[in-house]
Amino acid sequence: MPVEIEQFHAIAISRIAHAMKAEGASIIHMEFGQPSTGAPAAAIAAAHHVLDSDGMGYWESMPLKQRIAALYGEAYGVDVDPERIILTCGASPAFVLALSCLFAPGARVALARPGYVAYRNTLKALHLEPIELACGDAERFQISAAQIAALEPAPDGVILASPANPTGTIIAPEELAAIAEVCGRRGIAVISDEIYHGLTYTGPAQSMLQHLGDALIVNSFSKYYSMAGWRLGWLVVPEALIGAARARMGNLFLTPPSLAQHAGLIAMDERAELEGHIETYRRNRALLLEALPALGLRRIAPPDGAFYIYADIGHLTDDSLAFCGALLRDTGVATAPGVDFDPVEGRRFMRFSFAVSTPLVEEAIRRMTPWFAVLNKEAAA
Amino acid sequence: MPVEIEQFHAIAISRIAHAMKAEGASIIHMEFGQPSTGAPAAAIAAAHHVLDSDGMGYWESMPLKQRIAALYGEAYGVDVDPERIILTCGASPAFVLALSCLFAPGARVALARPGYVAYRNTLKALHLEPIELACGDAERFQISAAQIAALEPAPDGVILASPANPTGTIIAPEELAAIAEVCGRRGIAVISDEIYHGLTYTGPAQSMLQHLGDALIVNSFSKYYSMAGWRLGWLVVPEALIGAARARMGNLFLTPPSLAQHAGLIAMDERAELEGHIETYRRNRALLLEALPALGLRRIAPPDGAFYIYADIGHLTDDSLAFCGALLRDTGVATAPGVDFDPVEGRRFMRFSFAVSTPLVEEAIRRMTPWFAVLNKEAAA
Repeated sequence: MPVEIEQFHAIAISRIAHAMKAEGASIIHMEFGQPSTGAPAAAIAAAHHVLDSDGMGYWESMPLKQRIAALYGEAYGVDVDPERIILTCGASPAFVLALSCLFAPGARVALARPGYVAYRNTLKALHLEPIELACGDAERFQISAAQIAALEPAPDGVILASPANPTGTIIAPEELAAIAEVCGRRGIAVISDEIYHGLTYTGPAQSMLQHLGDALIVNSFSKYYSMAGWRLGWLVVPEALIGAARARMGNLFLTPPSLAQHAGLIAMDERAELEGHIETYRRNRALLLEALPALGLRRIAPPDGAFYIYADIGHLTDDSLAFCGALLRDTGVATAPGVDFDPVEGRRFMRFSFAVSTPLVEEAIRRMTPWFAVLNKEAAA
Repeated sequence: MPVEIEQFHAIAISRIAHAMKAEGASIIHMEFGQPSTGAPAAAIAAAHHVLDSDGMGYWESMPLKQRIAALYGEAYGVDVDPERIILTCGASPAFVLALSCLFAPGARVALARPGYVAYRNTLKALHLEPIELACGDAERFQISAAQIAALEPAPDGVILASPANPTGTIIAPEELAAIAEVCGRRGIAVISDEIYHGLTYTGPAQSMLQHLGDALIVNSFSKYYSMAGWRLGWLVVPEALIGAARARMGNLFLTPPSLAQHAGLIAMDERAELEGHIETYRRNRALLLEALPALGLRRIAPPDGAFYIYADIGHLTDDSLAFCGALLRDTGVATAPGVDFDPVEGRRFMRFSFAVSTPLVEEAIRRMTPWFAVLNKEAAA
């Protein structure tokens, strides 16, 4: 029998939000991790041109592979051969590709809990065994070298995410180095999800490639480049896996969208416009970090990067899905319940995505303030 | 250890073709199964509008699901609930989705040999066991109910393709009914690849849904709708698998490209323009069916549909890859070697794709005529 895997609960929240909107409600969408901005203007202009001049068949852009390879030199000082870049239809299939290249059914793969729900579910769908390592406040919700070193037997692989979803926390460079050391020593394959790179507020995140040349790196145009619906991502594989990765890409996925490849190449050099989005996120983050404690949400993961705030609501509920549903129905503010990210502790957490405009964040705070005030009063009574 | 799977040899041919083109050679691309035409004009116009008016986030188009569901009523007289339509990034990931919903590692899945290489390779990548059933001239290169009935033990699943790649042959309605009967009786899950529907020359192809309501149907916008590089396809699942399929789509792939969904909806009603492409293919097919026997290629699978001719070259070679390479280098005509479709007999077959313009087919025939004449003379000597 095929395995059962869960759907995203945030999608259920979003469906309710859209139904409410259809009935005239004013909704603020903070439930999904996607920019509300579009692709850079120059990328859209390029797309218009391609639409009129290109038949758009199956295609892999070598210029894009070269540009992405160059990014590793520019951003991290790491030399990457363009042949090591596999272009994908977003980060999700890049993960499937990475897992398929590295593991056979039954392999054990360690990852942090809380974490992005698709890691756990994709592992299960591919008949791999997720080894979830509980990471709380004390660990800044991140996996550590010590945790990996303590696992007996050694897992076959480990998934890192820095900055992480749902917390936004970054793994410090010395910890990345220690993880590289222990994984290298114990023969543990490393997949590093670097999809939120570029979206950082406390200093840049390092790539795992700076510490471990054989790490597989997942990245995408959906977050920093603000091109979620274009479905373009990439996987960096070590030399030895190029053949396996290419064969899987061709058979399981074929090629990424042509138009997205053309537009993505242009987007990569539109830094000024993209950095403008970061300024918005920086303002939104500051607003929320000031407002949420005033709403009684004081236990918050430090959002070093990404566009999320993961908040402990354990003093108000032990059913985050019902809690996010009530918040939505009462205020129109859609958020994601912690159960999407942590099947054990997630019932007492919620995630805010602040990849919306600053006026919408201000409005969300205005709506939530009286709502949380009532709940806090009830909880204190 | 992860399994080893093969790359497409046609890609190697195509790389040589592109290298030759870069050095000034005139190349005729008949190696891949993709239309050389682009999307319908109205779909491109819609895409321009969406580019300028929509942020293009993660999105699933309910209107597109409804339109596709309606197609099953129009084309086949079958009632399909739109909720049973899962939109995908092309037919390839739709296959991964179907296989993942139906089977666990070790499951045995029967399919015709020759057949599309990705079936075999994707099965292997997912640790499923391909049961390849040899189908030659006598079987019109198609799997039969009798073959499935004779398999002991019964396989867990079967993959059908009608019209097929690489042969273009269609499974007759009465044979589809017989296959449905034997699969229903023996509890064999059916995945039907209907990606070439609409591209038929000897009468329309039936959908397996007309015979077996529980069949999983794979289809795409890449062939009939001439939108290969847009990466949009769909999977029809039975009611009971909707939850499993949605969960896998969300976790393993997320959403299909937004722009393609908008454009695809418009393309579905541009029949006049699309039927014009079929007229071109019909002319190309007639030209090749007349010319190829004159080149000595007399043993040809009957191309009922798709845009392929699969020809026996066993009297000239037992190494189709080298043969296609020599044809390319000498004439600039790129074709696909049979080894991509049949690991056993494929060394003596080659595939022509005629989804190019009619003048290019005429030019290919002009170039191939003297080339084959020399080979035929040598073979006769």
